[in-house]
Amino acid sequence: MTATAHQALEQADELLALRDAVERRLEELLPPAAEQDLVGIAVREGVLAPGKRLRPLLLLLTARDLGCELASIVDLACAVEMVHAASLVLDDMPCMDNARMRRGRPTVHCQFGEDVAILAAVALLSRAFGVIAAASAHAPACAAELVGQMATAVGTQGLVAGQYQDLREGARARSAEAIVQTNALKTGVLFSATVQMAAVAAGAVPAVRESLAHFALELGQAFQLLDDLADGHTHTGKDCHQDAGKTTLVALLGADTVHQRLRAHLRSADRHLACACGDGMGTRRFMQAWFEQQLATLAVQRPAPR
Amino acid sequence: MTATAHQALEQADELLALRDAVERRLEELLPPAAEQDLVGIAVREGVLAPGKRLRPLLLLLTARDLGCELASIVDLACAVEMVHAASLVLDDMPCMDNARMRRGRPTVHCQFGEDVAILAAVALLSRAFGVIAAASAHAPACAAELVGQMATAVGTQGLVAGQYQDLREGARARSAEAIVQTNALKTGVLFSATVQMAAVAAGAVPAVRESLAHFALELGQAFQLLDDLADGHTHTGKDCHQDAGKTTLVALLGADTVHQRLRAHLRSADRHLACACGDGMGTRRFMQAWFEQQLATLAVQRPAPR
Repeated sequence: MTATAHQALEQADELLALRDAVERRLEELLPPAAEQDLVGIAVREGVLAPGKRLRPLLLLLTARDLGCELASIVDLACAVEMVHAASLVLDDMPCMDNARMRRGRPTVHCQFGEDVAILAAVALLSRAFGVIAAASAHAPACAAELVGQMATAVGTQGLVAGQYQDLREGARARSAEAIVQTNALKTGVLFSATVQMAAVAAGAVPAVRESLAHFALELGQAFQLLDDLADGHTHTGKDCHQDAGKTTLVALLGADTVHQRLRAHLRSADRHLACACGDGMGTRRFMQAWFEQQLATLAVQRPAPR
Repeated sequence: MTATAHQALEQADELLALRDAVERRLEELLPPAAEQDLVGIAVREGVLAPGKRLRPLLLLLTARDLGCELASIVDLACAVEMVHAASLVLDDMPCMDNARMRRGRPTVHCQFGEDVAILAAVALLSRAFGVIAAASAHAPACAAELVGQMATAVGTQGLVAGQYQDLREGARARSAEAIVQTNALKTGVLFSATVQMAAVAAGAVPAVRESLAHFALELGQAFQLLDDLADGHTHTGKDCHQDAGKTTLVALLGADTVHQRLRAHLRSADRHLACACGDGMGTRRFMQAWFEQQLATLAVQRPAPR
């Protein structure tokens, strides 16, 4: 076995271990609900259904690259996943994207009804804030900043604004710049909160945090472009052609140009990450491998016929 | 003018001043949105439409009775009102109580659509957590506890559970005990978080916090009974007969018995408050005057015909 192959295998094992740690802790933080407690069951369905766990892994790897002990921050990683899951539950609602499939299963409102879906999302959001607060109980000075980071990422300067822009403006003709801005709000701000929470936990200096902010924005753009390219493919576990009728960069510029843009964002993301993490290579290797794998899947799969 | 009348007038002036302070600060914390930002406009409509501001006043008066400076806790009072407003926006949705009027105006989803209403509620919730975190920046040790209090009040042990029980079980025959338990979750837990946040800010000892916990539960029951008695009256600004088809204590026990129960809860609430606040009479006077006024309005108004 070559050194590189050996390293790749080691990393794969390690990622699986980290993902297991996150999923085990999510199970503990959101214990099984009584049979009649549909909201509790929907909360678990929303967050424990098989997922990529990209944001928790990003938080853990970044924090470790910055010299932080993992044990102390698994809860923060779980909180980020809860917020992400809450946003998916709401985005899928009939009055939003009206999606019926997510992660290969019927969406939460399809399984449990719209009322339960809304209540489950609210429960996940508030649980996330509670977990962040409790996780920083041993470092009280961090609590206010960590909660503030997440509150900003969710609110009218973050996920809420991104979803609104996408709903109201997505169906109209819009410029590439407008799409880039919406993508930053839809995806970039939660990546940003994710790595900034890692930085706060690790006590990183301002210059590092600035590099991480740039990294998160580039990563958000790359991720959203990947998501747009994947629409129409059958491996995503989501409804096919969910973007039909929506102005995306793929529709505007074509898949080839979007591929090139995606590569440019990844290169830029990697440069900023290198500035932030110095010798720490965990996050850089993970990001590269993750995008290569996703892009390879796209290249093999043919788009599903419309 | 008698001493009592003079005292009553002084208190009325003071309450108006406190309410103004809360509303001015809410205006600052949620500044006017751009014309095209419907979510920002809906956020303001949800929280700035004329309201009783019962929870913020309760927080401010309790904290002052416990010896706390008001200036430092107005933001906490605003955060409680934001959470309350978010819960009303969601409770009114078509998939929940399907209400069309609230505070004398069309409900938020009727004005702006369901998608915007959901996003506005999420924005209000996350802003509330951010405001709590920022408000405790000068006393970092409090941040984690304050955020934790609110997270618990909202989640599957609080408002979410109360709303779910009311939706799913309200239409069935249920026992008085089951209704009392639902009322505790629907109303008591947010009152509880409200006074506990005041206690944390004031650095109150455990015995005081225990008395406040009992007070909040009694108050929650009294408040929900008042709300049930008021259903069918036209002065509430809400849809009339919203409870039609729902098992309430009024339907189960009759209005007279509910009146007696309400009085008993108020007496008990006052006793616990007296234990908590010692010489501090502000909250006790406010609660007594507030309920007397509401009950007097009910006595004058005849229920609207069905």
